[in-house]
Formats: sequence, structure tokens, C-alpha cells
Amino acid sequence: MEEKRAAFLVFSGDMDKIFAAFTVAIAAAAAGMDTTMFFTFWGLKAIQKGNLTGKGLMAKMLGLMNRGGIGRIGPSRFNFGGLGRWMFKKMMADKGVAPLEELRQTAIDLGVHLLACTTSLDVMEIRREDLIDEVEQVVGAATFVKQAAGSSVQFFI
Amino acid sequence: MEEKRAAFLVFSGDMDKIFAAFTVAIAAAAAGMDTTMFFTFWGLKAIQKGNLTGKGLMAKMLGLMNRGGIGRIGPSRFNFGGLGRWMFKKMMADKGVAPLEELRQTAIDLGVHLLACTTSLDVMEIRREDLIDEVEQVVGAATFVKQAAGSSVQFFI
Amino acid sequence: MEEKRAAFLVFSGDMDKIFAAFTVAIAAAAAGMDTTMFFTFWGLKAIQKGNLTGKGLMAKMLGLMNRGGIGRIGPSRFNFGGLGRWMFKKMMADKGVAPLEELRQTAIDLGVHLLACTTSLDVMEIRREDLIDEVEQVVGAATFVKQAAGSSVQFFI
Repeated sequence: MEEKRAAFLVFSGDMDKIFAAFTVAIAAAAAGMDTTMFFTFWGLKAIQKGNLTGKGLMAKMLGLMNRGGIGRIGPSRFNFGGLGRWMFKKMMADKGVAPLEELRQTAIDLGVHLLACTTSLDVMEIRREDLIDEVEQVVGAATFVKQAAGSSVQFFI
Repeated sequence: MEEKRAAFLVFSGDMDKIFAAFTVAIAAAAAGMDTTMFFTFWGLKAIQKGNLTGKGLMAKMLGLMNRGGIGRIGPSRFNFGGLGRWMFKKMMADKGVAPLEELRQTAIDLGVHLLACTTSLDVMEIRREDLIDEVEQVVGAATFVKQAAGSSVQFFI
Repeated sequence: MEEKRAAFLVFSGDMDKIFAAFTVAIAAAAAGMDTTMFFTFWGLKAIQKGNLTGKGLMAKMLGLMNRGGIGRIGPSRFNFGGLGRWMFKKMMADKGVAPLEELRQTAIDLGVHLLACTTSLDVMEIRREDLIDEVEQVVGAATFVKQAAGSSVQFFI
């Protein structure tokens, strides 16, 4: 029997979408699929350490937005300058839902491959060492697309 | 010949994206595919009755946002406090395009399976009875992902 | 060996997402897949000439938003009334990344099929002649979904 694969392109940097991304990736990995997450553009926030790095104006702004790493990401709605993030986290904690950091760790523990997009890192002036150590590879979109082809589950998130 | 399947994860609560979701689901079902829509997070607005339920602050806000059900959902752009919704509905009606309520009914009539996400209901304090009766099941993401695997058409919307 | 296919439903009209859409489409086409991009709703901005056409209020607004075509599309974040677009373009140019116009041309040169959504054109009052000549066909969602079924790579963007 052919081994099943799952591939997710994580473009969004919103807390709720990243939550959804890790949730489906974990579900796929737990079901025995060889699972890959390719982080690009805003999605890189989910695998950054959260320090400030780039020197250009835009890079500085992107860095500021991402200060503090995955635990500081706001939702796509109701952020209200950080209040929404706090409320979401509280609602999730109240219901026993794992926070993003923990979800990411679960994905890693289940062997989900974390990849970062070469072009995005370059344009956003993010260095390899700004990403968490568990990122396996920095690759181009072409490499990811070839690898993702034929996956049983695949989403652009 | 193997039966084809289609699976859609509906995360968005924007009128235009939900419109797109029902349109592709109807297209898939009409083409003979066994079609499933899994509603999570904001997407739940598309299958709620539109009453207010949760008691927490966030749940109350989410409830307010969704007062009135699927017919009261605004677009991702140009909402202008409800004006955009009205304009979109008018433009669609002028062109003979079915409103969301009707699209949803067509999907149901074509046998599209409507599923709701357990965790989202829990976090957003939405009860099963707040969803329309046609929702077949409340399941976790893991169940949906396993079922979606290998579908001929699959989108995260 | 069966020929592989790739199919992308481009719903978004944000510069960054359209950038991602053309990038993955180019990657798929370069890998030898028969690749199709179906533009609907806001995504139509990526294949419009950029003139103003519709006569209704909403159509006028949509037209204004899209004045100038693909080179005038703003990002999903940090647009700041056009400043973000300018900064993104500059950052990309500084890093040697091709602008959207060029990416689109590369996709066309690689034989990517560009399709436009019938209903969206109708609702938004966009005429066939407002789209770039390279658009192969104006088809309904049902046609696209049937064609996309079984594609090796498929995303809703």
C-alpha cells in the first residue's frame, strides 16, 4: 500500500489560521501521513523566534509586528490592538485547548516537516537563525510544489 | 470505477468566501461527487440559526456579529457597517444570482454533507441546537482530515 | 504514465496572495503539469486591463479599486493607502524578485491556462474585453471544478 502524504502551504500569519493549520497537520500526521508544512510570507511568523532582525524600514516593521514569536500572534478578526489575542487565548485555555506553542511542539513530535520559503526569507530580511531550530529546510516554492504533488490532503492556508 | 469525493474546510465567515464555498460544493455534488463541507471557526456562521447563545464576553461578541444567521453575513471587503452586504445582495439579485440561504438549500438538496467542528463549537460557546437541523454531525478535525484524504477536489476556504 | 495536472482557484485580490498564486502556478507548470488558474471575485484584478467599466455604484467602486491593473494591486496587510504596495514592490525589486506583471507573463509563457469566472464577471459588471487577451475562456465554477477534479496540486487562494 502506498504511503499517504499531506502538504500544507501556510501563507497566513493570523493566529486563528495558524491554529487551523497546525490542527489539520497534526490530524494528518496522527493518521499516519507523511506531513509537510511550507511556511511563506506572513506564515513565517509561526516558525520565528520572535527577535527583530532586518535593517530596512519594511523589515523593521515586519519585525515589530512579530516581536515575541508565535505566542504573540493576533487573530484575523477582533484583534483590537492585542486584546483579541488575549481573549482568544483565554477562551481556548478555559476550554482546555492547547496554545499555539504547544500545538507546534505536538506537530514536531509527530514528525511533521517544517519548511521555510527561500524567497520570503530573502524579501522579508529574515535569517535562518531567526527561525526555530526545528525547521528542517529552507526551500523554494518549486521544490515544495513538486513534493506536494499527489498528496492525499493539501491546503493553502 | 471509483466514486469521487470532494471535501471543503470552510474556515472563513465572509459572505463572499462562503458564497464561493457553496458554489464549488454544489458544482462538485452536481458532478456526482460525494461532497462534504466541514465548518470551523468563522465558517460556522454559515450554518448557524443566528440566535445569541454564549455567556462569556467573547461568545457574546461572536453572537452579536452573527445575529440573524446566514442572511446577515458581510463581505470580506467593502462592508461599511452593513452597507456592503446590502449592495452585494442587491448586485447579485439584479443579476439573478441566488442568495446564500438558497445556495445552502441547494447544497443540502444535492446531498452535500454539512459537518461542524467540535472544538470551534466548544471555544465559541455554540450549542448543537444553535446550528441548523441539516448539520449531519459534529466531529473533530482529525475525523474530517481522515475522511477528506484522497478527495478529488479539496479546498481550505 | 498519466499526465499530471494542477488547478488553482484564485479568489483573493491581494498583491501578496496573487504573488503566491502565480508563484505556485509557475512552479507546477515548470514541473511539467498542465496548469490552470481560475480567477473569480477579487482575483479577477489579476487579469484585468485596469480600465473602469461598470455603470452601477458598486461596479464603479470595484473599478476604482482596480484602476491601473495588476501593477496597482495592494497587499493584504500594511497597504496604508498605497504606501505598502510601493514598499513591497521596492523590497521585491531590491531582492531581484519579479513584479506581478512579469510573473503573470512567465505563467502565460509556460502555458498556464487563465480562466475567468462567468458569474463574477456578470455580478461585477466586467466585460470580456476588460480582461487581458491571454485569458483563454470565461467559464462557470461547475466547469472548473469538474476539470480540477483529480489534479495533483490544487489550492483555493
